[in-house]
Amino acid sequence: MTRAVVLTSGGLDSSTCLAMAVEKYGAAETEALNILYGQKNDRELASAKKIAEYYGVRYTLLDLRQIFSFSNSSMLRGSTEEIPEESYADQLKKLGGEGTVSTYVPFRNGTMLSSAASFALSRGAEAVMYGAHADDAAGRAYPDCTPEFAEYMGKAIWEGSGRVLRLEAPFINMTKADIVRKGLELHVPYELTWSCYEGREKACGVCGTCRDRLKAFRLNGAEDPIEYERFPEDL
Amino acid sequence: MTRAVVLTSGGLDSSTCLAMAVEKYGAAETEALNILYGQKNDRELASAKKIAEYYGVRYTLLDLRQIFSFSNSSMLRGSTEEIPEESYADQLKKLGGEGTVSTYVPFRNGTMLSSAASFALSRGAEAVMYGAHADDAAGRAYPDCTPEFAEYMGKAIWEGSGRVLRLEAPFINMTKADIVRKGLELHVPYELTWSCYEGREKACGVCGTCRDRLKAFRLNGAEDPIEYERFPEDL
Repeated sequence: MTRAVVLTSGGLDSSTCLAMAVEKYGAAETEALNILYGQKNDRELASAKKIAEYYGVRYTLLDLRQIFSFSNSSMLRGSTEEIPEESYADQLKKLGGEGTVSTYVPFRNGTMLSSAASFALSRGAEAVMYGAHADDAAGRAYPDCTPEFAEYMGKAIWEGSGRVLRLEAPFINMTKADIVRKGLELHVPYELTWSCYEGREKACGVCGTCRDRLKAFRLNGAEDPIEYERFPEDL
Repeated sequence: MTRAVVLTSGGLDSSTCLAMAVEKYGAAETEALNILYGQKNDRELASAKKIAEYYGVRYTLLDLRQIFSFSNSSMLRGSTEEIPEESYADQLKKLGGEGTVSTYVPFRNGTMLSSAASFALSRGAEAVMYGAHADDAAGRAYPDCTPEFAEYMGKAIWEGSGRVLRLEAPFINMTKADIVRKGLELHVPYELTWSCYEGREKACGVCGTCRDRLKAFRLNGAEDPIEYERFPEDL
């Protein structure tokens, strides 16, 4: 019997979220749901699968590429936009302090959470979990990572499910550094994760998410166990 | 330039909603989004296409069947459950006055609206519209048709889109009879619509939605222009 469905991407945040779900609900009652949405980087799919295997939880891959095939987000394969080699802070500065970054995929988290809710209800689960956190929400860079979004989406899932399914976003008020601290305590196998937006053999080291990840480890005085092509000079 | 995306199903409610959108935004700035979710009845897809053609709006079909392939809702192809030959009122009575009916598809409207929001943002639209109404919401038979759900989903879409996309649910406090009254005023081509949950040549006349549709026309002193296999004796 499944109690919790965790949206996993193979990245640092959702892998830590999966570890928390397994701690709370047990591996036999937790499932990982991984979503293909057309990301340039499909290294993360292999990571998501490995982490689900590591934790011994059932793994399902949903293909939602058609929904996002109308978008030109720089995150997506076939986009005419390049992924910026800048931190989110610098991207936000250029947007005047607030605004959506080019790697935002239109209402991606809403669509992924709704699909996860449909899936979770079919499984008879009581909770959907996802790893959105405060750093991604800053300046509404990713508006579908904000506490406001999570609150309303959670209420929509609760009401729309006939008041049986909860949304849990345990990191919504935490930074990425807080997540790494929690994950190191839980011994999350970060060597299996993949965060880089590019899909090359090693992580690029300079896209927004590589920078954020490296910084989160550094703030914990820990070393990131994955390999990088290069390290940003201005981290 | 698209301003509004309307979720259409080929049924009475969404066809009337499309007519309202065309009146408000113009045909050139309105798009119809039709969703394949595994429904037994695929007659409605042909209807949705015909109605979009009638109004001269761009039509897109999204295939979300994989998301719902884990569900045993009686609405879905491959389900072991039969579609009940009863009104919703009678189904609710059996559930003790409140509860989800067997034709509820898990978080279907949430998933359809989220997908529509993703699509609408890719098109640069400002509104997503859908035809949920008070009759479907009664007793939470379809919890994803309630005003509470629409309110929170609308706020989630607003926040998650970076405050650029609105959800419009013009019928949320109207009955199906009110919708037919509005549609008759707007000369909606109801002869092209399809509501029956079964996918046979003529509408069955006795499933919940056939009963509701027939009643809505009768309450307006109007005749439903589509053909029925039979008429319920206890309408």
